[in-house]
Amino acid sequence: LLVASPRPYSLALESQRQGRLVEGRLVYRQTFVIRSYEVGVDKTASIETLMNHFQEVALNHVWMSGLAGDGFGATHAMIRHRLIWVVSRVHVQVERYASWGDAIEIDTWVDASGKNGMRRDWLMRDYKSGQILARATSTWVVMNQTTRRLSKMPDDVREEITPFYLQRRAIVRNVSHKITKVDGATQFARSGLTPRHGDLDMNQHVNNVKYIGWMLESVPLSIVQDHEVSSLTLE
Amino acid sequence: LLVASPRPYSLALESQRQGRLVEGRLVYRQTFVIRSYEVGVDKTASIETLMNHFQEVALNHVWMSGLAGDGFGATHAMIRHRLIWVVSRVHVQVERYASWGDAIEIDTWVDASGKNGMRRDWLMRDYKSGQILARATSTWVVMNQTTRRLSKMPDDVREEITPFYLQRRAIVRNVSHKITKVDGATQFARSGLTPRHGDLDMNQHVNNVKYIGWMLESVPLSIVQDHEVSSLTLE
Repeated sequence: LLVASPRPYSLALESQRQGRLVEGRLVYRQTFVIRSYEVGVDKTASIETLMNHFQEVALNHVWMSGLAGDGFGATHAMIRHRLIWVVSRVHVQVERYASWGDAIEIDTWVDASGKNGMRRDWLMRDYKSGQILARATSTWVVMNQTTRRLSKMPDDVREEITPFYLQRRAIVRNVSHKITKVDGATQFARSGLTPRHGDLDMNQHVNNVKYIGWMLESVPLSIVQDHEVSSLTLE
Repeated sequence: LLVASPRPYSLALESQRQGRLVEGRLVYRQTFVIRSYEVGVDKTASIETLMNHFQEVALNHVWMSGLAGDGFGATHAMIRHRLIWVVSRVHVQVERYASWGDAIEIDTWVDASGKNGMRRDWLMRDYKSGQILARATSTWVVMNQTTRRLSKMPDDVREEITPFYLQRRAIVRNVSHKITKVDGATQFARSGLTPRHGDLDMNQHVNNVKYIGWMLESVPLSIVQDHEVSSLTLE
């Protein structure tokens, strides 16, 4: 859960951040080199690494577009209305996991999602070959920071955001796949996964990405060792 | 515990890795921008982030010097002798933790440590101000991969490494501080911290850095919230 904070973050040089706005300044593109501590036992980037990179480019995108009134992507009008972004759904499709030392390039952009929401997509490519490694899409809605209730998007917020919209989909076929109730869910439940202080992010929340790690811990080791996550939906 | 692996890692462009050899090619220097998921609740880089960056530059250093016979810093002669590096001690002194979005620059180099060991030092600076943020030193010895026993350093290994030695200390005053036995240690013990599959690195070991996270979880929250780690010694 990424919410607003009154404290903007400091600024590194664009060359160091390795990110820039491209395609009419509507797409934010950043390069990453997969680091030694971002890979698992099979030397490929974990799904958590991928989600961390997605979060990073999303925040850098809103910051670099000048859209952000704070470090968490809330616009100036949103701050006036005491509104914050909350993510309601993330769907990721992985073609291939990058390996230790690989350079990857992530594109991200936003579009409308209905009348009150925003869609953010990501496309991850291998930097050298251009091969698509992963595609992802997410839906964001606005929440009142005080009441903690979802809110309609005020007109002045929509006006601020609309110039940044790009009609392009990372995932062409609209996956309206609903997460169905799992019968006998307790059979798959894993308890004892209490948040550690070190699991908290700067919002003092357990970050989305940590939940993915916990979910994967509930998968039997024999499955984890011989399989990869090919797609993931968080609601 | 970083051990040898037969599989070298693939290669990103030097510009993307943001690292290069400087000062007679004896110092490896790399720039990092502190990312949103590398900071804790106080928006500063955690000690784990710092240690992850230290590990990353160490591996990139040996790889870029052409010294490495594999991706884990074992030299060609070490591989012939079936020897691997193990770290016996790490000592870190933090002046100031970098914040989200800050650019930092890390220097690392190696020197002899007695007859059979190698010392690796790190110096972390704020990229813009040049202010020193952290200093660290570590001692590495060689272990036989088959017997799992520590080994003397063979002459041909020493000959390979010596040209890369630089007589410079990140921590000028030699801290020979020994870790003393803690009386009533059980009082500080924290159980239930079992390794998760996701805690394993590509050596299928729990990485050093994960232990630091566990150690910090044993510190009462009231202390963690109002204090920072100013120095750390791992043996």
